[in-house]
Amino acid sequence: MISKKMQALVSNNSVIRMMFEEGRNMAKKYGEENVYDFSLGNPNVPAPDKVREKAVELLNNEDPLELHGYMSNAGYPEVRKKIAENLNLRFDTSFNENNIMMTVGAAAGLNCALKAIIDPGDEVLTFAPYFVEYKNYVANYDGVLNTVPTDHETFQPDLNALSEAVGNKTKALIINSPNNPSGVIYSGKTIKGIAEILEMKQKEYGHSIFIISDEPYRELVYSDTPVPYVTKYYDNTMVCYSFSKTLSLPGERIGYLVIPDEAEDHEDLFAAVTIANRVMGCVNAPSLFQKVVAECLDAKADTGFYKKNRDTIYEALTSYGFKCVKPEGPFYLFIRTPVDDREFAEEAKKEHILVVPGTSFAQGGFVRLSYCVAYETIVNSLPGFKRLAEHYGLS
Amino acid sequence: MISKKMQALVSNNSVIRMMFEEGRNMAKKYGEENVYDFSLGNPNVPAPDKVREKAVELLNNEDPLELHGYMSNAGYPEVRKKIAENLNLRFDTSFNENNIMMTVGAAAGLNCALKAIIDPGDEVLTFAPYFVEYKNYVANYDGVLNTVPTDHETFQPDLNALSEAVGNKTKALIINSPNNPSGVIYSGKTIKGIAEILEMKQKEYGHSIFIISDEPYRELVYSDTPVPYVTKYYDNTMVCYSFSKTLSLPGERIGYLVIPDEAEDHEDLFAAVTIANRVMGCVNAPSLFQKVVAECLDAKADTGFYKKNRDTIYEALTSYGFKCVKPEGPFYLFIRTPVDDREFAEEAKKEHILVVPGTSFAQGGFVRLSYCVAYETIVNSLPGFKRLAEHYGLS
Repeated sequence: MISKKMQALVSNNSVIRMMFEEGRNMAKKYGEENVYDFSLGNPNVPAPDKVREKAVELLNNEDPLELHGYMSNAGYPEVRKKIAENLNLRFDTSFNENNIMMTVGAAAGLNCALKAIIDPGDEVLTFAPYFVEYKNYVANYDGVLNTVPTDHETFQPDLNALSEAVGNKTKALIINSPNNPSGVIYSGKTIKGIAEILEMKQKEYGHSIFIISDEPYRELVYSDTPVPYVTKYYDNTMVCYSFSKTLSLPGERIGYLVIPDEAEDHEDLFAAVTIANRVMGCVNAPSLFQKVVAECLDAKADTGFYKKNRDTIYEALTSYGFKCVKPEGPFYLFIRTPVDDREFAEEAKKEHILVVPGTSFAQGGFVRLSYCVAYETIVNSLPGFKRLAEHYGLS
Repeated sequence: MISKKMQALVSNNSVIRMMFEEGRNMAKKYGEENVYDFSLGNPNVPAPDKVREKAVELLNNEDPLELHGYMSNAGYPEVRKKIAENLNLRFDTSFNENNIMMTVGAAAGLNCALKAIIDPGDEVLTFAPYFVEYKNYVANYDGVLNTVPTDHETFQPDLNALSEAVGNKTKALIINSPNNPSGVIYSGKTIKGIAEILEMKQKEYGHSIFIISDEPYRELVYSDTPVPYVTKYYDNTMVCYSFSKTLSLPGERIGYLVIPDEAEDHEDLFAAVTIANRVMGCVNAPSLFQKVVAECLDAKADTGFYKKNRDTIYEALTSYGFKCVKPEGPFYLFIRTPVDDREFAEEAKKEHILVVPGTSFAQGGFVRLSYCVAYETIVNSLPGFKRLAEHYGLS
């Protein structure tokens, strides 16, 4: 009775639910404080107080018909204008409200972008490891997601492999920097290299190839390393942004999509994503939070907390002999496993440590740790990690 | 470059945009107060004050990590429980939190329901006239939407026609009561009749046929006429509800989907809609407003305002000779046109009156008026309607 497309997802979901149940059972059995759950990317730094202040202010002062009413499917023009101006200031771009569509988080933005350009059988590329959901998003429009490898020492994309992978069916490349799960930032050189390859391939195949840049972690960077703004390197770019991580608002579902004037058929493309937003049922991004984020563009959740976590867990794990790139962004650590990653994840459970096998990101031989957890969770997990390292003879 | 599916929608959108621009130009030319725009179904009664109070209270008192954080893709269990209990009280149902999924409005609920059950080529039926967007929702999953006529004196569904229309490909019937655009409520007898036919057809074809009941207008009723709760008549029902109209919160995108235990494979179906919610990019319904609506289940925007509008415009128009069913619900009036509906809509523009041709609801020969406008707009529009009636010799 369930549609064929959904049947596989429902079966697969049971597996995830089993993992989740297992974690809960462990917490019950050993006590919440004795289980070290590094499996979820759920921000654990509260939203900056400005969010609360502005939301309350809007609720108390604004006309409810305006505050909670319908607006253009693309969002309130004045909100889009503020976001455009903020981007222009920070990245020296030249956007206006007609380049910005407000979305129900980055996930809805990605879906709108894909629905706008993908025909059945079209190919979308992404670099492995990647956020597993991309595959489902592409499948929604009967596209096919294929992966291109990264260098496993740096997790920068392998540009030669990209050049070979782009074919006549390729309509888009999804990139995600700062990256989940590797934690690395794609350098300006990398983005420039990608742009050059795609420019060439567009000419070769005679049709547009889009970069869809998924950027929920743009502000979660703990160094001065710049995160290149992709529209400045490549015209056919759509940027999917979310406030989920920057402002710790994942439940509110608020983000935006950027389509620069330089993108091919900009106006039709903007119409297409706006209609996609409508017909897929989002209709528009939640109205109160559109206005809230527009007032909080200079605010940011306390990333110092994540940095402290990162430094502690990175220093400890590498001192035990684990190998991983020091992440500059997100709250993820992607560590190389001495054995099969699923086997390692099982072994880690014996230490009450929950991690996600890299296989789930199309990259075996690694596991992902989300260090957006209480600092004590990290400290208390370390003896377990040390024993794991000893178990595998790493130290 | 735009996907083939979206190309038609983009072209069609330009037509709608042109209509919208035309209305704006008329307002500029003749003054906002001299243009009578009955084309949009945007609530114009403010949200009850309880919404503001509860939102502020939650923002000021609740832990922001809980208030704005991720929860199950189906929504906060305690919110779903409260909604289940409220439905049980009002409709003598026996739901619990496992029957309720919170959605980004009813539109997202409909999309999740359809994605869960529709395979390419499957048929979905609905009664004409119908909310045009259904066609796009069904097309998202490569289904085909076909219509079944209603009786044009009462706008109750034609059950004989339904019986003939249901075929082996039919997977679902979308119903919408109280109805947009006709304003009528489907009676208990009608729902019972539909249920009997579908029961029979399920047996005949050996597979489930779902009723998807789209109910954003359930609380917008100006009489004692009950609106039957469909799960009590038919097991394979999914109810899509929205708080957009009841609480005047269309911009906040908050609603829910009901799947009763009695539905076939209830558990898998619930998993399927929840996954659909995730992979299509909604992920979950906006978190703050999940908690707000759970505290406002007994609140309601002032429907007395709409009733006054309805009474005034209905009395006046019928006294001029226009024919229409007296609507018991929504803020819509569906009037019979003496000439082709598109021609009538053009003629009405000469009186600065904007209405939507019934052709847009797959029902020519009628136009829809949305009377969720200022009372003065109605009063001031009446001389124009009178002249229109005279022009066509109705009075």
